[in-house]
Amino acid sequence: MTVSSALFSAPSAAAMQSTDVFPRGSFVQRHVGPEPDAVQAMLDFLGLETLEQLIEQTVPDNIRLETPLNLGGDVDESWALEQLKAIADQNLVYRSYIGMGYADCITPPVIQRNILENPGWYTAYTPYQAEIAQGRLEALLNFQTLITDLTGLEIANASLLDEGTAAAEAMSLSYAKSKSKANAFFVSEGCHPQTIEVIRTRALPLGIEVIIGDHESFDFTTPIFGALLQYPATDGTIYNYQAFVEKAHEAKALVTVAADLMSLSLLTPPGEFGADIAVGNTQRFGVPLGFGGPHAAYFATKDAYKRSMPGRIVGASKDANGKTALRLALQTREQHIRRDKATSNICTAQVLLAVMASTYAVYHGPEGIRAIARRIRQMTSLFALGLNKIGFTVESDRSFDTLRISTPDAQQIFDSAAEHAINLRLIDRSTLGVSLDEATTFEEVQRLLKIFALGQPLGFKLDRLLEEASADVAPEFRRTSPFLLHPVFNKYHSETELLRYLHRLQAKDLSLTTSMIPLGSCTMKLNATAEMIPVTWPEFGQIHPFAPSSQTRGYRLLCEQLEAMLCEITGFAGVSLQPNAGSQGEYAGLLVIRKYHEQNGDSHRNICLIPTSAHGTNPASAVMAGMKVVPVKCDDQGNIDVDDLKAKAAEHADNLAALMVTYPSTHGVFESAIREICEVVHASGGQVYMDGANLNAQVGICRPGDFGADVCHLNLHKTFCIPHGGGGPGVGPIGVGEHLKPFLPGHSVVNLEGINRIGAVSAAPWGSASILPISWMYIKMMGGAGLTYATKIAILNANYMARRLENYYPVLYRGQGGWVAHECILDLREVKKSAGIEVDDIAKRLMDYGFHAPTVSWPVAGTVMVEPTESESKEELDRFCDAMVAIRQEIEAIELGQSDPANNPLKHAPHTAEVLMSDSWDRPYGREQAAYPAPWTREHKFWPVVGRVDNAFGDRNLVCSCLPMEAYS
Amino acid sequence: MTVSSALFSAPSAAAMQSTDVFPRGSFVQRHVGPEPDAVQAMLDFLGLETLEQLIEQTVPDNIRLETPLNLGGDVDESWALEQLKAIADQNLVYRSYIGMGYADCITPPVIQRNILENPGWYTAYTPYQAEIAQGRLEALLNFQTLITDLTGLEIANASLLDEGTAAAEAMSLSYAKSKSKANAFFVSEGCHPQTIEVIRTRALPLGIEVIIGDHESFDFTTPIFGALLQYPATDGTIYNYQAFVEKAHEAKALVTVAADLMSLSLLTPPGEFGADIAVGNTQRFGVPLGFGGPHAAYFATKDAYKRSMPGRIVGASKDANGKTALRLALQTREQHIRRDKATSNICTAQVLLAVMASTYAVYHGPEGIRAIARRIRQMTSLFALGLNKIGFTVESDRSFDTLRISTPDAQQIFDSAAEHAINLRLIDRSTLGVSLDEATTFEEVQRLLKIFALGQPLGFKLDRLLEEASADVAPEFRRTSPFLLHPVFNKYHSETELLRYLHRLQAKDLSLTTSMIPLGSCTMKLNATAEMIPVTWPEFGQIHPFAPSSQTRGYRLLCEQLEAMLCEITGFAGVSLQPNAGSQGEYAGLLVIRKYHEQNGDSHRNICLIPTSAHGTNPASAVMAGMKVVPVKCDDQGNIDVDDLKAKAAEHADNLAALMVTYPSTHGVFESAIREICEVVHASGGQVYMDGANLNAQVGICRPGDFGADVCHLNLHKTFCIPHGGGGPGVGPIGVGEHLKPFLPGHSVVNLEGINRIGAVSAAPWGSASILPISWMYIKMMGGAGLTYATKIAILNANYMARRLENYYPVLYRGQGGWVAHECILDLREVKKSAGIEVDDIAKRLMDYGFHAPTVSWPVAGTVMVEPTESESKEELDRFCDAMVAIRQEIEAIELGQSDPANNPLKHAPHTAEVLMSDSWDRPYGREQAAYPAPWTREHKFWPVVGRVDNAFGDRNLVCSCLPMEAYS
Repeated sequence: MTVSSALFSAPSAAAMQSTDVFPRGSFVQRHVGPEPDAVQAMLDFLGLETLEQLIEQTVPDNIRLETPLNLGGDVDESWALEQLKAIADQNLVYRSYIGMGYADCITPPVIQRNILENPGWYTAYTPYQAEIAQGRLEALLNFQTLITDLTGLEIANASLLDEGTAAAEAMSLSYAKSKSKANAFFVSEGCHPQTIEVIRTRALPLGIEVIIGDHESFDFTTPIFGALLQYPATDGTIYNYQAFVEKAHEAKALVTVAADLMSLSLLTPPGEFGADIAVGNTQRFGVPLGFGGPHAAYFATKDAYKRSMPGRIVGASKDANGKTALRLALQTREQHIRRDKATSNICTAQVLLAVMASTYAVYHGPEGIRAIARRIRQMTSLFALGLNKIGFTVESDRSFDTLRISTPDAQQIFDSAAEHAINLRLIDRSTLGVSLDEATTFEEVQRLLKIFALGQPLGFKLDRLLEEASADVAPEFRRTSPFLLHPVFNKYHSETELLRYLHRLQAKDLSLTTSMIPLGSCTMKLNATAEMIPVTWPEFGQIHPFAPSSQTRGYRLLCEQLEAMLCEITGFAGVSLQPNAGSQGEYAGLLVIRKYHEQNGDSHRNICLIPTSAHGTNPASAVMAGMKVVPVKCDDQGNIDVDDLKAKAAEHADNLAALMVTYPSTHGVFESAIREICEVVHASGGQVYMDGANLNAQVGICRPGDFGADVCHLNLHKTFCIPHGGGGPGVGPIGVGEHLKPFLPGHSVVNLEGINRIGAVSAAPWGSASILPISWMYIKMMGGAGLTYATKIAILNANYMARRLENYYPVLYRGQGGWVAHECILDLREVKKSAGIEVDDIAKRLMDYGFHAPTVSWPVAGTVMVEPTESESKEELDRFCDAMVAIRQEIEAIELGQSDPANNPLKHAPHTAEVLMSDSWDRPYGREQAAYPAPWTREHKFWPVVGRVDNAFGDRNLVCSCLPMEAYS
Repeated sequence: MTVSSALFSAPSAAAMQSTDVFPRGSFVQRHVGPEPDAVQAMLDFLGLETLEQLIEQTVPDNIRLETPLNLGGDVDESWALEQLKAIADQNLVYRSYIGMGYADCITPPVIQRNILENPGWYTAYTPYQAEIAQGRLEALLNFQTLITDLTGLEIANASLLDEGTAAAEAMSLSYAKSKSKANAFFVSEGCHPQTIEVIRTRALPLGIEVIIGDHESFDFTTPIFGALLQYPATDGTIYNYQAFVEKAHEAKALVTVAADLMSLSLLTPPGEFGADIAVGNTQRFGVPLGFGGPHAAYFATKDAYKRSMPGRIVGASKDANGKTALRLALQTREQHIRRDKATSNICTAQVLLAVMASTYAVYHGPEGIRAIARRIRQMTSLFALGLNKIGFTVESDRSFDTLRISTPDAQQIFDSAAEHAINLRLIDRSTLGVSLDEATTFEEVQRLLKIFALGQPLGFKLDRLLEEASADVAPEFRRTSPFLLHPVFNKYHSETELLRYLHRLQAKDLSLTTSMIPLGSCTMKLNATAEMIPVTWPEFGQIHPFAPSSQTRGYRLLCEQLEAMLCEITGFAGVSLQPNAGSQGEYAGLLVIRKYHEQNGDSHRNICLIPTSAHGTNPASAVMAGMKVVPVKCDDQGNIDVDDLKAKAAEHADNLAALMVTYPSTHGVFESAIREICEVVHASGGQVYMDGANLNAQVGICRPGDFGADVCHLNLHKTFCIPHGGGGPGVGPIGVGEHLKPFLPGHSVVNLEGINRIGAVSAAPWGSASILPISWMYIKMMGGAGLTYATKIAILNANYMARRLENYYPVLYRGQGGWVAHECILDLREVKKSAGIEVDDIAKRLMDYGFHAPTVSWPVAGTVMVEPTESESKEELDRFCDAMVAIRQEIEAIELGQSDPANNPLKHAPHTAEVLMSDSWDRPYGREQAAYPAPWTREHKFWPVVGRVDNAFGDRNLVCSCLPMEAYS
C-alpha cells in the first residue's frame, strides 16, 4: 500500500515536487480553489490534457525553470505554526522606553478582534469601487478628521507609509510649492535620526541639499525652500516653534512639523503656530509596535496645498440619488495619472492601521484621549520628580512623555535596565532617554527609579510626589482649542456600541469574505487564517524597532529565512525587506541601480526606458530616483516593440541606466522576447528593473533572476498573501543580483552590514516587519511544489475565464500559443459604440450581481482586466462569468432597442435596497431585474448602501473630514 | 489635585467601592452601556436623584447587602489578561494519549477564527426567532445530518451537553419507551468510567437499578429495559454487538451505543446493527479538549422515538411565501412545556460547539473524514506492530485508535512518558491504554515506542513497518455504507469557499453585533473581547480532562478563585462548577438537598414546592431528582401567595424537601416577602432552592445565601458573560450553604475531596472548564464596585424602558415602590382584543425594525418580557422603545379601521427583501412602510432572509436533516 505523505509530520513530500497531486486536506488544497475534478473539467474545457501542457504552451521555453524550487515540501498549518512559534520565541519581549516615534500602547481588545483579526476588514481591497466600500471610507474619514483636529491643519490624507517617508513627502511638496528658488531643506537636529536618514536618501537623487542644524540658531542666511521640525523633539523637549515658522515664511520656506499625535491633545497644534504641513506616526493610537510596522503615518497640510498632497484622500460627495456618499477624492493628482510629472510615487495607504488608529480615537473620544495624554504626562512628571530626588538634574517642564537624562553612569544604568527586561535609549555615553507611554503605571515608574538609583534605596515614598506631578504641560505650550467634537467620536464609548458600529461599517463593504475580487495586477488571493494568526502574537507585536539585536533574534531569523525563500523563488542573490510598499520597492530598486552605476564611475547613466504600457508609478519612481524617462513603444499585441527598444537603447547607450519592465506584461501576457529584451538593455550598459506586480504568474515556473532581470520588487501583499487590508499595508521587498547586493538599503539606527548601502527608504530597518510572518507561513505551508501548483492553477483559472468570456467580450491580448498568463483584458470598447455602455456601467452593474469589478480602464482605457488567482474555485469563476454573460445580454437588449439606452439597469447601477424599495418606481425595467439579476442573488445578496457616486461633484465641493450628522439623513 | 485611580496598575480603587464613578475608559465604563450623562438623564426621566435612591425603592430593605462585595477594585483589560496568563501558565500542556472519549484534534484555523473567535457567531441567542437565525439553524441541520449519516440512525438532535449526560438521557428515554416492565439498566463495563458514573447518579433518584457487566456474558435472565454499550470499548476493543442487540430486543430492551464519531467513518454504524439510540462526543471534530468541555454531545435514535428525544431538534419547514425555512421542531415535547411530565430537563444545546463540529465535517467532507480516520487507524496499527517488535503482545485487529497494553512495567512506562511530557492512560498496575488521534504523526509513534522500550534501542526501522500497518479496520467491522453525500459536505473544501459559506450563514443571523437582544430572564449582556481571548489560549485548550493534577494547577487555581468569587457574590459557603447548564445546576442542587435529607435520616422528604409562575424546567428537574411537585399559588401581582405557601408547607411539613423559587421573581419583581418565604420553608424542615436565572439583578445588592436560600444555581452564561453561543454552551454552577458543602458533586475519575458527595452530574469534573476564564475575567475586571454598579444600571435600564413604554403597553407586574427589577413584562393581551394582534405579530414585526423580540408569552401568555441588561446604552433603549411605540401606532391604525386587520405590516412581518422587491405588490400598505418603518432602518437594515415560518407545517412534515438543494431554490 501507499503511504500518505500526510502521515509524516513535515516537511511532507519531497517526492511530490514533480507532481501536482496534493492530499485532500493539505494546505495546498485549502489554498487552491479548484478541487482536482474541477481542474480536470477546466482542462477539458480548454482542450488540454494536463496542466503541464498549458504551461508549456503559455510560458516561453527559453525561460522555463528546469529544476523544482528548493523550498521543501508542503507542511500542514499546525506544524508551520509550531515552527514559527519557535522562531518567535527567540524574540525577547522587553518593556521598551526607547521612544523615537514608537510607543507601547494598548490595543483595545474589541479593536484587535474585530478589525485586525477580522477577514471582513483585512481582506478588503483598496476602496476604488466606492459604492461597496463605504464602511472603510467612513473609518478613513474619521482618520482624516482625527488628524486635522489634532494638528490644527485644514486637510489630511488617509495615511502614508511611515513617519520617515511622510517627512520626505513633505520635503517634496515643499520643494514643489515653495516660492523660494532655493534647493536646500533645513532639518532640525532634534528630529528622529531615522527620519533624517530617509530625508537624506530622498534628497540625494533630487539634488536637494539637506542642512541639519539647530533650529534656534539657524539664521536663514542660507536660502531654504522648507524646514522640518520635530514636536516634541526626539529628546523630548517641547519647543515653541512660532518664531522659527515666522522667519521661515518670510524666507518663503514651508515648514513641516513632525508631531507626536498623542501630545497634540495637550500641546498647541502645529496648525495654530503656522506650520504648513504636519506629519507623524499614529502607531501609539492602538497599533502594536511590531518591530517597526506596519503603522499608519499621517500627513496634513493647508487647504492651499491639497492638490499637491501625496497619497490618498477620502472625500464626501453624493450618489445618484442625492444621498451622501464617500469616495477617494482628487484622484487625478495621483501618480498613476501624472506619471513622470508626479512629485510622489505613493499609490497606497496603510488603511487597516489607519482604521485601527481612528477607531481607537472613536472609542476613547476626546476626553479619553486627553485623559491618556495627561496620565502619560503625569507619569513623566513623577518620574522627573523622582529622578531629581535621587540626585539627577532633570527638567520636565518642557517635556510631554520623554526625558533626557545626563549621567556619567549612562551605560551602567542602561545595562541594569536590560537586566530587568527594560530598554532605555542610550543617546550617548553620558545621556539616556526615557519615553513613557499609555501602558506606563505608577509601579513602572517606581521600578525605573530603582534602576536609576543603581541599587541604592530611594529614600522617599513615590506616592507622596504624585500631588506635585503635573498632568498638564507648561502653560505656554498648552492647547486651548477643542478637538474631536464630531458625534462619531462621542457616542461609541461602550464596547457594545463600538462593536455594533464596527459591524455596521463592515457590512457596507464587499471583501473576500463575500465573493471574488478579480482585480487585474492585484492578485486578491486567499489570506489564510493560519498565515494571519502569528501577526497578533505578542512575541512579534511588542518589539520596538530599535530594541537591541540580542532581543530580536527571532525577527532576524524570520527575515533571513524569508529572504532566502524569496531569493530561491526569484533567482536573486539578495533581498531587502525594507520597502513598505511596491512603489517603495521600485524606488529602492532604482536607487540601487543608480548607486551601482555610480560605483562603476557611471554617474552619468540616468536614462530610464519605460514601455508606454507601464503602470504610472514606474515613471514616477524613476523621476524620484533622479532618472530621465524615455518611453518605449509597444506593438499592437501590447508587447514591447523590440525594434523600438533596440533603437532607444542604442540611442542612449552612453547614458542608459535602466529599463523598467513588468513581467508577465501589464497586458497579462508572457512576452516571448523577454530574454532578448534583457540582453538588449545589458548590451547597452543598462540594468533591468522588473516590476514584480505579476510575479504570481512566475513562481516555480520561471525566475526573473534567471532570465535577465537585475532587480525586481515583489509585492508580498499580492503574490505572498499579505492581505490588502482595505488599501494597505503592503510590503514591497526587492530582490537583486549578486552585483547589486552591496547596495541594498541600510539603516542609520540599526546597523546592517556593508558600507555601500543606499540610505534607508523606510523608517524601520525591516519595514513592516510584523506582517512578514504571513508570507513566511504561506511559503512554508505551500512548499516548492505547492507554490508551483498554485501558479499553474492561477494561469489555468485565467485562461478558463478568458475562454468562457471570449465570445461575449473580446480578449484583448494573448501570448504565444493563444494563451493569456494569469489575467486577461476584456475589451468593452465595442459595447460603448453599440450601446453607449461605459466600463463604469458594467463595473457598477457587477455590484448588483454581488461582485467587485475587475481593474477598470487600466492598462487600456475602455477595458477591464480580470485576475482570478488560484484561490478561486471553478464555481466562483463560473458565477462571475455568468454575471458577465448576463450583463452582455442586458447590453444586447439595448443594442436591439428593447431597453432604453439611458434608463436601464446598467446606467442606474448599482441599485440600493432603498431605491428598489421605493413606493414610487417609474423605470422601464422591473425591480426584480434590478435587484436579482442572477439566481444566487436571491440566496445571498450583497447590498450596496449608496448608488453611483458622483466623483466630479465631490471634487468640486471638497469635504475631507467628518460631515455633520444631518448630511447622513 | 486628584490622582486618577487608573494611574495605578491594579487593582485600582478600593476607594471607589462606595461610589458609582468609574473613570472614562475603565472596563466598567466599557461594559456598562449608558455613559454618566445618560445615567443622569434616565434618573431625571424617572424623577430620581441618584441610582442609590432607585435601589432603595426597589430592593426590599431587609435583604439589602450592607457591606460592599469583597472582590477588590476594578482592573483594566490588559492587567487582568496578564494575571490570567500567569494562572494559565501553571497548566502544563502535555501530549495526551489518554483517550476515554477525549482526543486531541486539529481545529482548522479558519473555523477557530471565524466561528469560535467571532462575535457574529458566539453572541447569538438560541434560535427561537427562526426568521433571523437561519444561519446557525443551517449549521445545526448539518450537524444533525452528520450524526444521522455516521450513526446510521434516522434522527438526531442538535446536540446535548456531554457524552455522560447524553447516555443518561438515553437511559431515561429507554425507561420511558421500553415495553419491558423492568427497572434495571445494563451498562457494559467497557463503557467510559465517567459515563458509568453519570448514569449511576441519574439512576439513583429514579429508582433504576444499574447493572454493570460484561456484555458478552450477560444472559438477560435479569430483566432490563435498556442497555448501554461503548463502541469501540473504553479499552479500544471493537466488538460486534449484533447478537447482543438481538437478544436485548427479544427482551424488549432498547440498546444505546455510545460511539466514537470518527471511528464510525470506518466501522459499521450502530443503526446498521440495530441500535435504538446512539450517543457520543463530537469533540474530536475540531473542538479543543479544553479540560473537558464544552463539547457537543450527540444523540440519535429511531424515527419512532423522535417525540421522546431530549434536547433541541432543528427541522425544515416553509415560510409564509412557501420558501424553505428552518426552525426548532417539535417544541411541544420540550421540558418547559411538559413541566413535571417531562422525562428530561435539558433546555439547551451546545450550539457553538456543534456548529464547529459540523463545519469541520463540511470542510473535510466524507473523503477527508475517512482519510483522517484511516490515518489514525494506520498509526495505531503501526504502533501495535512496533510494540510487538519490542516484545509486547498487542492485538490491534480489533482496535481503531486505542490499544490496551499489558506489562509489568506499566507504572514505569507511565512515568517515563510523563518525563517526555506525554500522558498515557494507566488502566491498572499492569495495564496501559494509549489512544492515538488526528494529530498523531509518524514521529510521535516512534517517540512512544522509545518510551515503551524504556531506554533499550528499538532495533528496527519503523518506516519499514508502514507497509504492513493497515489503515483499514478488520473486514467484519468494516463500514460499507456511504455517508455525507449531501452537497454541503462536498463543496466547501477550500478555505476561501468555507470562509464565504460561514460568512453567508453569519449574515443571516441577528446577534449582539447587530442590536440589543432584550430577552427576559436570559440576560444578553456584553461578552467582552478581553473575556473571550483566553478561551483559545492553548494552555486552556489543550488539556485533557483526566490529565494528572500536577499538570492542571492553573485550571485548579482558576476554579478555586472563581468559586471563591461566586461565594462572595452569592453569600454561599461552597460552589461546584461542574454542571454544564442551568438545568444541570438545578438538578445537581436538588440532588444535594436530597442527599442532605438522607444524611439527616430524612430520606422520606420528597415534596418539592414550586410556584405556578416557575420556569418549566424547575418541575422537570424536581421529578428527575426523585421529588414530587406540589404547586404553590401566586397572587395577582405575580408574587408567591404566602398564605398558600404557609398552608402547603404546613400540610407537607413531614415530607417537605424543598421550595424552588426564582429571585427576583420570574415576573421581574423583587418580592418583598422573600425572607419570610425562606423562613416558612425552613420552619417546615425544607430547604430553599433558588433559581439563579435572575441573579443579574442581585449582584452586589443582595445575596441569596444571606436571606435564606440554601442552594442556588448561577447561569454563568447569563450573569457572568459567557456568551450564549447561539444556544449554548452554558455553565450552571451551584452555590450552597455550609451545611450542604459536603454533598457537592464528585467525580469518579478525578478525585475531589470528600466522601459524601453526590455522584458526578457531568462527564468532566469541572464541566465546561475552558470557558470559565470568561467569568473569571469579567468579575476581575469589574471588581466588587463595578459589579454592583452594573446591577444598578441593569435595574435603571429596565425601569427606564418600563416608564417609556407604560403608556403604550401596560407593565404587568411591579414590586414595592412601583418599580420593576431588571426586566419587565409588557402586556399585549389588550391589543389582541382591540386589533387581533398576537404576540407573535409584534415579535416578528420587531425584526423589520432590526430587533430581536423579547421573551414571548413567558412567564405569562400574551405578554413579552423585556430585559435590557446594563450593557445597553440609552440610545439603544430609546431605539427599541421607539420601535415598540411605532408598532403600537401601527396597531392603532388597525383599531381605527385605517389598516386592514388581516393584511397589514404586522400580520405579514417579517418582510424579506425578496418579497418587498417583487414586481407585483398588491398589499394595502407601502413597501417603504414595510421595509423602513423607522429612520435607522434606512441607515442600517438587517434583512431577515425568510418570512414568517410555518411551525405547524414543519412538525407535520418532519425533516431533520439536510434538504436536497432543490428545496432552496
